Amino acid sequence: MEAHLNMTGWVGTEVETRVTRAGQTTASFRLACTPRARRAGGEWGDLETSWLTVTCYRSLADNVRASVAKGDPVVVVGRLRTQAWVDADGQRQDRQVLEATAVGHDLTRGTAVFSRTERTVAEEEPDETLRDLILSVEADQASAPAPA
Amino acid sequence: MEAHLNMTGWVGTEVETRVTRAGQTTASFRLACTPRARRAGGEWGDLETSWLTVTCYRSLADNVRASVAKGDPVVVVGRLRTQAWVDADGQRQDRQVLEATAVGHDLTRGTAVFSRTERTVAEEEPDETLRDLILSVEADQASAPAPA
Amino acid sequence: MEAHLNMTGWVGTEVETRVTRAGQTTASFRLACTPRARRAGGEWGDLETSWLTVTCYRSLADNVRASVAKGDPVVVVGRLRTQAWVDADGQRQDRQVLEATAVGHDLTRGTAVFSRTERTVAEEEPDETLRDLILSVEADQASAPAPA
Amino acid sequence: MEAHLNMTGWVGTEVETRVTRAGQTTASFRLACTPRARRAGGEWGDLETSWLTVTCYRSLADNVRASVAKGDPVVVVGRLRTQAWVDADGQRQDRQVLEATAVGHDLTRGTAVFSRTERTVAEEEPDETLRDLILSVEADQASAPAPA
Repeated sequence: MEAHLNMTGWVGTEVETRVTRAGQTTASFRLACTPRARRAGGEWGDLETSWLTVTCYRSLADNVRASVAKGDPVVVVGRLRTQAWVDADGQRQDRQVLEATAVGHDLTRGTAVFSRTERTVAEEEPDETLRDLILSVEADQASAPAPA
Repeated sequence: MEAHLNMTGWVGTEVETRVTRAGQTTASFRLACTPRARRAGGEWGDLETSWLTVTCYRSLADNVRASVAKGDPVVVVGRLRTQAWVDADGQRQDRQVLEATAVGHDLTRGTAVFSRTERTVAEEEPDETLRDLILSVEADQASAPAPA
Repeated sequence: MEAHLNMTGWVGTEVETRVTRAGQTTASFRLACTPRARRAGGEWGDLETSWLTVTCYRSLADNVRASVAKGDPVVVVGRLRTQAWVDADGQRQDRQVLEATAVGHDLTRGTAVFSRTERTVAEEEPDETLRDLILSVEADQASAPAPA
Repeated sequence: MEAHLNMTGWVGTEVETRVTRAGQTTASFRLACTPRARRAGGEWGDLETSWLTVTCYRSLADNVRASVAKGDPVVVVGRLRTQAWVDADGQRQDRQVLEATAVGHDLTRGTAVFSRTERTVAEEEPDETLRDLILSVEADQASAPAPA
């Protein structure tokens, strides 16, 4: 079972970063997507805007923090995931998050100068490390104020 | 801009159908997705389950109602969209929905006997009709109780 | 790195099955996809048809063989992969294949009666077994006539 | 019907650009994708590399030419399409192409400095213009040597 999502849109907030208890960097931002569709008469129009929180881990988090600003057009690939936590009133809350496996500036809308960074071997071994990360993120969130 | 999502999982509720003011059928159900990943030791384990509401329009709504039951494994393709409405307390609410363009029983988990139905010409012209549909759905929702 | 593909279309051939040297069933068929797009005047038209070979393994192969016929509309999710082999003339050949992780009848175009089958534990552990399967398939193909 | 593909990988060739008879720029490059998977013992390994030709139109073509070099890691979103032509011997040939709707440098592997460019209104109206473009590209290819 999988929930595979790719999304193009505009970065609608500043990139927020945090360091989990396990010492890992995470970065997140809100992504706005306004699809266009052709109407019956043949002209184009905007559909309603959708918003989703994008979360990045490890080297992707570091590079997104260094490269992405509010207002940038981006393309994001990853998996959709429901994050759940208990808020200060003891109520269960959840939200949908796009856990990114890749993020890039959308070159339909501009140009980019790219600089490669070194990756450690651990970067190539995503799943169980990522899971540990996620669990520590959730532990953080369980006692934190509800996310925006 | 687009938000393209495909998801495999289990149908976690009965299929609910409604007829909009414009006389169109919509069908919706909750989809549960529990990814598996390999851990450091090599064994497999479940990740947390994600849940998402799937919405179907027109002939897809009719055929999903006739074919899909709670507990069925399905594959769904469509776009992720944020639906927003004002609740009875005047508060703005929103939720993420997978607007399906195709739904099928997942043949990794069983067999199916398929019967083709006739489609009208209008079925082939999705976008602006779909948009009108969506707007009428939203008008319905604005005055309805908040969805589960 | 990944190549994630989902495709809706018509099954253009009978489903062909084979048993690899390792005793595993594989099933394959050709999938035809004819997108529609709106033209400048507002009317809809067909774009050119694309064709791709879809390959299924293990229980998915068994269930596709039992359920899918030429002419059926299907939705397929999986990864795109280049298969390479040496033909009878010693020339390197390659083709693109959609290795399916899920296949279902497209309920926008008809109804289905679904029956769940049992899965073995091994079915839940895809990657390295799949890899072994692929290698044995390739070993078979290397000495076989070039695929259509 | 649709064939939606997203792919992360390495640019394996220089970006080639051409101007069609209709005066439009197209850019193309070969993309190499080497998935990793965990094996039975728990260690990670590379699967075989897949290769696909990526084609870009209009402003995306211009910006890819200005921004992307051989060896860059990229994320590409678009649709898979079969291009067919008749070669110099009168034989029908075809190949699979990823028609990109978005391309970006993969920020899991480095950082980027992005500069937004202006887009014309026409850029927002993709489908039928794109179709005309494609037909003119094909007319060019029909009389050209077979693509690599």
